[in-house]
Amino acid sequence: MQHLLNDFMVEEHIKNALKEDIGFGDITTDYLLEDDFEISAMLNTRQDGILCGIDVAEKVFKILSNDILFNNFYKDGDAIKKGDNIAFIKGSARAILSGERTALNYIQRMSGIATETKKYQDAIGNLKAKITDTRKTTPNFRMFEKYSVFMGGARLHRFNLSDCVMLKDNHIQLTHGSITHAVNKIRQHLSHTHKIEVECDTLEQVKEALSAKADIIMLDNMTCDIMKQCVQLIGDKAIIEASGNVTLENIHDIAATGVDVISSSAIVAKAKTLDIALDM
Amino acid sequence: MQHLLNDFMVEEHIKNALKEDIGFGDITTDYLLEDDFEISAMLNTRQDGILCGIDVAEKVFKILSNDILFNNFYKDGDAIKKGDNIAFIKGSARAILSGERTALNYIQRMSGIATETKKYQDAIGNLKAKITDTRKTTPNFRMFEKYSVFMGGARLHRFNLSDCVMLKDNHIQLTHGSITHAVNKIRQHLSHTHKIEVECDTLEQVKEALSAKADIIMLDNMTCDIMKQCVQLIGDKAIIEASGNVTLENIHDIAATGVDVISSSAIVAKAKTLDIALDM
Amino acid sequence: MQHLLNDFMVEEHIKNALKEDIGFGDITTDYLLEDDFEISAMLNTRQDGILCGIDVAEKVFKILSNDILFNNFYKDGDAIKKGDNIAFIKGSARAILSGERTALNYIQRMSGIATETKKYQDAIGNLKAKITDTRKTTPNFRMFEKYSVFMGGARLHRFNLSDCVMLKDNHIQLTHGSITHAVNKIRQHLSHTHKIEVECDTLEQVKEALSAKADIIMLDNMTCDIMKQCVQLIGDKAIIEASGNVTLENIHDIAATGVDVISSSAIVAKAKTLDIALDM
Amino acid sequence: MQHLLNDFMVEEHIKNALKEDIGFGDITTDYLLEDDFEISAMLNTRQDGILCGIDVAEKVFKILSNDILFNNFYKDGDAIKKGDNIAFIKGSARAILSGERTALNYIQRMSGIATETKKYQDAIGNLKAKITDTRKTTPNFRMFEKYSVFMGGARLHRFNLSDCVMLKDNHIQLTHGSITHAVNKIRQHLSHTHKIEVECDTLEQVKEALSAKADIIMLDNMTCDIMKQCVQLIGDKAIIEASGNVTLENIHDIAATGVDVISSSAIVAKAKTLDIALDM
Amino acid sequence: MQHLLNDFMVEEHIKNALKEDIGFGDITTDYLLEDDFEISAMLNTRQDGILCGIDVAEKVFKILSNDILFNNFYKDGDAIKKGDNIAFIKGSARAILSGERTALNYIQRMSGIATETKKYQDAIGNLKAKITDTRKTTPNFRMFEKYSVFMGGARLHRFNLSDCVMLKDNHIQLTHGSITHAVNKIRQHLSHTHKIEVECDTLEQVKEALSAKADIIMLDNMTCDIMKQCVQLIGDKAIIEASGNVTLENIHDIAATGVDVISSSAIVAKAKTLDIALDM
Amino acid sequence: MQHLLNDFMVEEHIKNALKEDIGFGDITTDYLLEDDFEISAMLNTRQDGILCGIDVAEKVFKILSNDILFNNFYKDGDAIKKGDNIAFIKGSARAILSGERTALNYIQRMSGIATETKKYQDAIGNLKAKITDTRKTTPNFRMFEKYSVFMGGARLHRFNLSDCVMLKDNHIQLTHGSITHAVNKIRQHLSHTHKIEVECDTLEQVKEALSAKADIIMLDNMTCDIMKQCVQLIGDKAIIEASGNVTLENIHDIAATGVDVISSSAIVAKAKTLDIALDM
Repeated sequence: MQHLLNDFMVEEHIKNALKEDIGFGDITTDYLLEDDFEISAMLNTRQDGILCGIDVAEKVFKILSNDILFNNFYKDGDAIKKGDNIAFIKGSARAILSGERTALNYIQRMSGIATETKKYQDAIGNLKAKITDTRKTTPNFRMFEKYSVFMGGARLHRFNLSDCVMLKDNHIQLTHGSITHAVNKIRQHLSHTHKIEVECDTLEQVKEALSAKADIIMLDNMTCDIMKQCVQLIGDKAIIEASGNVTLENIHDIAATGVDVISSSAIVAKAKTLDIALDM
Repeated sequence: MQHLLNDFMVEEHIKNALKEDIGFGDITTDYLLEDDFEISAMLNTRQDGILCGIDVAEKVFKILSNDILFNNFYKDGDAIKKGDNIAFIKGSARAILSGERTALNYIQRMSGIATETKKYQDAIGNLKAKITDTRKTTPNFRMFEKYSVFMGGARLHRFNLSDCVMLKDNHIQLTHGSITHAVNKIRQHLSHTHKIEVECDTLEQVKEALSAKADIIMLDNMTCDIMKQCVQLIGDKAIIEASGNVTLENIHDIAATGVDVISSSAIVAKAKTLDIALDM
Repeated sequence: MQHLLNDFMVEEHIKNALKEDIGFGDITTDYLLEDDFEISAMLNTRQDGILCGIDVAEKVFKILSNDILFNNFYKDGDAIKKGDNIAFIKGSARAILSGERTALNYIQRMSGIATETKKYQDAIGNLKAKITDTRKTTPNFRMFEKYSVFMGGARLHRFNLSDCVMLKDNHIQLTHGSITHAVNKIRQHLSHTHKIEVECDTLEQVKEALSAKADIIMLDNMTCDIMKQCVQLIGDKAIIEASGNVTLENIHDIAATGVDVISSSAIVAKAKTLDIALDM
Repeated sequence: MQHLLNDFMVEEHIKNALKEDIGFGDITTDYLLEDDFEISAMLNTRQDGILCGIDVAEKVFKILSNDILFNNFYKDGDAIKKGDNIAFIKGSARAILSGERTALNYIQRMSGIATETKKYQDAIGNLKAKITDTRKTTPNFRMFEKYSVFMGGARLHRFNLSDCVMLKDNHIQLTHGSITHAVNKIRQHLSHTHKIEVECDTLEQVKEALSAKADIIMLDNMTCDIMKQCVQLIGDKAIIEASGNVTLENIHDIAATGVDVISSSAIVAKAKTLDIALDM
Repeated sequence: MQHLLNDFMVEEHIKNALKEDIGFGDITTDYLLEDDFEISAMLNTRQDGILCGIDVAEKVFKILSNDILFNNFYKDGDAIKKGDNIAFIKGSARAILSGERTALNYIQRMSGIATETKKYQDAIGNLKAKITDTRKTTPNFRMFEKYSVFMGGARLHRFNLSDCVMLKDNHIQLTHGSITHAVNKIRQHLSHTHKIEVECDTLEQVKEALSAKADIIMLDNMTCDIMKQCVQLIGDKAIIEASGNVTLENIHDIAATGVDVISSSAIVAKAKTLDIALDM
Repeated sequence: MQHLLNDFMVEEHIKNALKEDIGFGDITTDYLLEDDFEISAMLNTRQDGILCGIDVAEKVFKILSNDILFNNFYKDGDAIKKGDNIAFIKGSARAILSGERTALNYIQRMSGIATETKKYQDAIGNLKAKITDTRKTTPNFRMFEKYSVFMGGARLHRFNLSDCVMLKDNHIQLTHGSITHAVNKIRQHLSHTHKIEVECDTLEQVKEALSAKADIIMLDNMTCDIMKQCVQLIGDKAIIEASGNVTLENIHDIAATGVDVISSSAIVAKAKTLDIALDM
């Protein structure tokens, strides 16, 4: 793997996925084929996109049979074109056929997310802003989704609730709307290794967050005009994140306001699977 | 839960998801609020759709705090309208805030799938065909996806590789194209409790599958004209499943060919999350 | 493995079994022998029977030491005779001695079941009926028991509650004795990939099950005379399963009634372990 | 539970067993019955025997539904007679029907072992010897088997490889037949809290084991005559265990030789399930 | 729990610890006492210190018996004096006796760490510096150690490798000593939610880290004189962490240099258990 | 490993520890270095002591990368001197840097315990007594602590609650102070493979324990004078264990009383980590 995904964690996830899909045995393949029957197959793509999950797919087959040969022609993050062969696979027919669906379930989703992410980053063009993801992920599948977002060219947002403070409207309400109070309360306890991000809906809130010395200010669901004013106000005193209703159509305009980071759940939650297939 | 999902299995899945999202602790909430601070909140929907996952969401909060009150006004499978309140929640502020994202991650995805499924089934109208899903699911999330498809009004396809035989083109190739040979080989071993489905690309293959007494014949990527011919040929000698490039636009035409079941991975893989939110 | 058992699932089961048997360490072997002491041993049988679990036994030793040499002279499903050497093992003395009991616990039970199953199938002789198992298995040991039954020459019954419907007397009672009502209720929801089996105690019930189009009709605890009548009545309109008090003595008579399948929990629950031993 | 079985460990085992048996859902029960349908049922026995596993059975149902009422009329270790009602159960029909097989799989096996054990202990009559079990157990089911043996009135042998040293013929061979050398080697390392048992095939070996101060001497596969000589020789200088080919027929004679303990794998490995059933 | 420890995660850890300590059963307690025997006991301290782990101890007993009454007179973070009663416990004698050692193993270690941490923080007196921990923790026990450090009045350092960048000497060596190059390389990928800390051994390195805009600068093993110079140089352009050979004797002098945070592995690795006991 | 630790159990423990320390990825190393970058490093010690955990450390790196070369110059139990190189490591820079802290966390603690244990055993000198440990261990880390104690030259006390009976004051109180009654009650149930140890505070209790035929008598918190009297009284009728406030200063005097075993929780709970480091 190139970044962030550790082999032994991936292996455990795949084993559970194989149990989910194989159950008491692949009755089609096990009853049809002898144990020592071998085949070769080609993984290829029927759509353009960004490849992601090739090492995960390889591991699916290798868990089912140690002796699988898996030669990949592209690696995660590479652009692939409709019709491209991605990997040549040779070995136990049972392992290849029983593992096919699970391998594709990983690689199709992961490549779909990387591909969608790339489109958003490309739409920003030469502007400095970076697309980033959110915590709206599929339960127990986050490490694969985060990795795919990263491979699609994005920067990542926080991994979970313990690596960055984010004060959302719900939190601030509980301190009667006082960002200052909330930030100070947290600062009493907070590790020096963690940042504080504050979600702001208005220019007023941005001002309060700034004076409370938030490390990151999130401009939530603002118009581009208001965002521009916020950017001017903040300058380099905090990192600026734009959020809310980001689309491929409006992301360039949002980036043009001068924000540093644009977060969107769409690159994960609305990404479609990329059509990758296995042919014998 | 209404069908298929068992509480204790759901609980284990949620605990892992909470570990994934909470890590070493929700530093925002834990540092901001006292342990005994209580709030109330309302779960509501910002989009029309079919509700799914309400009991899963409830369990997320109850795992974090035994004393959470959770009153839901709708149950899984119910139609909900933009603006509807779905559930009233009261109890530990920390539990509600730390669990919010995970609860929404389940319910948004599950309701999104149920909603998408319902659209496909509705598009079929009064025709007898039923929409069904596939094994193209998110690894280790299948039980939630299958359940959501069911709650959206579909019938389910096989759960995994061990509850029904499906001979796909890849399998048939390995017996040199002979459906007869493949079916017979499997029949030597097959439990009397399991069915055999055969994927067919041509009328010729349908004939061979019929004479091999397949229980289910899948018409893969055929035109509606060819499908009609197959339906006539098969009659009630096998269950007929249509598959391949099913869309909301063409599903009624496919159903009109007289097939029994129409399978589509789109109802899971292309479903968008339903916009459900938690307000204090 | 030949069918159904996947290596990585077997490995997980064995690791737990080794933890169960080794605890904090094999104090006899660890305190007696140096780490690098090597021995060779021979696995042999002291009874005639059908071998089952040889690959499981091999894996037990390999989990304890990568470098174990394990040459087996028979494979699962083979008939073995008292006195036959089954496998030659060479490597770490500690691994072989610490793993001995666990390896034997698997192979003795599995071979015992395969051997018992074979006797039942043999007793049927040339008649078409096949012996099959039930869900009366040892909790968390089912995959090994099902596999052994299969290796003993039987067909398998359903794996668990999700791969075939079986309406038992308890279910039918809850619909006030109406098989028709119960079958219809389930058909509203049932996947086209799953069958319906109905347990019948009387000829009347068989008629009702037939008209409800059950896929499989189980004749429960009937006399051979009644079974013959049922077989004639049903013809090839459903698969016919006989069940209840099946013994080695009466199974040929039951088969002679013309039923397709004869299910018995005895082949698992009453099988005795086969006396296989390890000699240095 | 009365001894040795801890609730939370039992619960984990049952949850895995329920996953094994339920898979993706009990399609019979879930499709047939509404979620809130309630029934009552009676657990009863169709054979005489010793009840064992009643609390395990109760927990199976309670894991599936918190609100199950379970009133048992007998407890583990009690003698039950054919026709006796054992427990009254009331609550969710789904929970009762989906849990039935798993609950019975535990209680039938456990009661079968307790019943078999009791027969062996009874056959010893008033003699001082106690029947005891071995490590020949079903992998990952030992705690239930050991508990059942105990409830049947036996004393337990060591739990696993870490709570007592046992030098078997294979070990002694590795020290060139010298029991003295083997015992001394182990004594250099052994905890003062653990005993040493030595397996002896001959009177000569018994003498050597005695002089090496073994805590327990196992007389392996000896005739009753030789055993008597050994008993006289040993006196109270070591605990004496008889082992090998113990049957209900010969156990009284073995006990009459004066040994302290008689170990047999048969009470577990050859025990038949006790016929306990659930009626609505 | 007051912060950071989630009940359901703690419960899982305790269950494993109880399996580790109970094994096949507490043979002393189970064989001595009837199942329904009840006792009361008092948890008290034989040393002054900071209490930590009281809720963990409570959960140990409650896992073993639902009906345990546990009234605690102090909560985590409270100062306790030799002789103080900490909690009154009443219920199943077996649960209390079998859980005693495990409960004490948690609370003695956790209180020991909180107590040690408090001493370091107290030694700093009124100076602004805060003591903080490191990643030198006991494998698979970190969440309890981090929580105890926090309850002892410290701020926490990063939880693990994914919530803050720390460039140590080993990393910088790999970029040929160039802090600038290392920081820039990482900035290309780094989430805007994460900070960069740089370990510096010399004033020169501090200058380079500053110009590379490190968020946190660690002064590693410097004299107080050099540290003072660094503090002056850095001002409020970065957070300043002192590290290396921190003792109760020198921590005040280190704090007096003006650093923000002082990290020490000693508060965990060298903390002694606090002598807390359970009396009947 | 030399004794008691099994590879596959160690591997599982390390994988959890790596998940604990790596979380969503080592952002420092993963972002700084290419996947195929290789380095070499030397594990060395900065303190004198007894090495323990070298195979555990090796496994940490090998879990992260199959291709790590790990050559160790010392093995567990060896004396090492400040400045000694312990092992040469070569391979993936990412694996070495991401695994460093976890590997050190094991080896530093384990060596610290072995080193401390050795000091106690050495202090006993030529006297026959052996130092032994207790059940005061870190939850879920016991197997490593017990192993380290053993490698430090001690004998082990019981592993957990199921391998030896120990009647403590709390137990005896529950039988109204009657050791005789308690021992007899337990003897009714106890396996012949397990011993009974009785904790005694007075000479009177020692006499009662002796007449009850306890296998081991623990002299708890007695003066050396009283202990000497007890030793004379007991002779070789039971094993004698001294316990309570054992220090490096008084252990020789305690041993001189003639006791067989001296147990102390200090060798685990008060051991300091040994300063072992990894240099590039």
